[in-house]
Amino acid sequence: MAIELHCFGESGNAYKAALPMELAGLDWRPVFVDFFNGATRTEAYRRDINAMGEAPVMVDGDVTLTQSGVIQQYIVEKTGRFGGADAAEAREVLRWQFWDNHKLSGQAGTVRFLMNFVPEEKRPQPVIEFMQARLRSVYDILETHLTGRDWIVGRDVTVADFSCCSYLYYPEPFGFDRADWPGIDRWLGNIQSLDGWKHPYDLMPRGG
Amino acid sequence: MAIELHCFGESGNAYKAALPMELAGLDWRPVFVDFFNGATRTEAYRRDINAMGEAPVMVDGDVTLTQSGVIQQYIVEKTGRFGGADAAEAREVLRWQFWDNHKLSGQAGTVRFLMNFVPEEKRPQPVIEFMQARLRSVYDILETHLTGRDWIVGRDVTVADFSCCSYLYYPEPFGFDRADWPGIDRWLGNIQSLDGWKHPYDLMPRGG
Repeated sequence: MAIELHCFGESGNAYKAALPMELAGLDWRPVFVDFFNGATRTEAYRRDINAMGEAPVMVDGDVTLTQSGVIQQYIVEKTGRFGGADAAEAREVLRWQFWDNHKLSGQAGTVRFLMNFVPEEKRPQPVIEFMQARLRSVYDILETHLTGRDWIVGRDVTVADFSCCSYLYYPEPFGFDRADWPGIDRWLGNIQSLDGWKHPYDLMPRGG
Repeated sequence: MAIELHCFGESGNAYKAALPMELAGLDWRPVFVDFFNGATRTEAYRRDINAMGEAPVMVDGDVTLTQSGVIQQYIVEKTGRFGGADAAEAREVLRWQFWDNHKLSGQAGTVRFLMNFVPEEKRPQPVIEFMQARLRSVYDILETHLTGRDWIVGRDVTVADFSCCSYLYYPEPFGFDRADWPGIDRWLGNIQSLDGWKHPYDLMPRGG
């Protein structure tokens, strides 16, 4: 039976799970979550799908997982791919997954949401500016790390790359421009060059 | 040789690493990071200690790790404790670690910092209010989960507990009051009852 991923195209967090499944050739299918009409906030969703009220949720037979970082680690276990070459690299992969969740996606996803999916009159401009300032130092850390490297960890692509790239392909403005960050830009191109790569909007159904 | 933890008492993220080392009886010692005087922002710190410019950093012989979630997983490997009873529980532990980093500590740590360690005239009040509103739904998810449970995962304490509790023992106000959340309050008491438990300010040197 195909793995089901409860997701929607606008979710970079869902993309973190969908992209490695697609690239590893796993048999999976998206199950659309109508996030913008409040699906994740319903009692039924919290009871039957995810008490944390978030997407993505992955269902593989009797294994149900939430939190993209955990789903990514499960894909590593299941496929033996994208996990780093040894134990030290595996820890380094996990390190960048945590950093991404805490510092990069955690803030970039929020700013993008506030700038594009909240009515203009309700946009909290000081919050957007605060997070954008913090994000500049986050992009700077990634840029410095990627200078002279093709991938975030070791010599091959890992789920650390699929985690950190997740919000950076979207066309909606949120204060990030690839042209400003040559190391990040080149690395995003490396990921796009992988056989079977797809943009989030081509991989998952859109809600917005 | 003792494990070194580069840390400071005000850091809940450092506490996530220090507390399980202490409770497992590992030979460790804190190395004070003078965060409030800019230590983590120096070139030397980024070059020699952590390019991400964060604390904690753990050094165990030739293993250097950053990101509290990774250090916690290393402690689990090293001690065989606090990791959950089986593979399913281990994934659930990781899930709550990610959730905590992304949603709970990631925001609670920021709000506490802004409300207590930034000069009053520089406090971005709209940011504080935005994050406090989001945190109420985060506490609510934790409260619901802990109703009828002693621990976050399974029947014993895990690093998921040490992750999620990390900012909740601090005396500085940031909009969280144990009295408002009876399930969380009881669970924090369970952790405090563990043999050898210490408050972050008794476990690590304070900078503020």
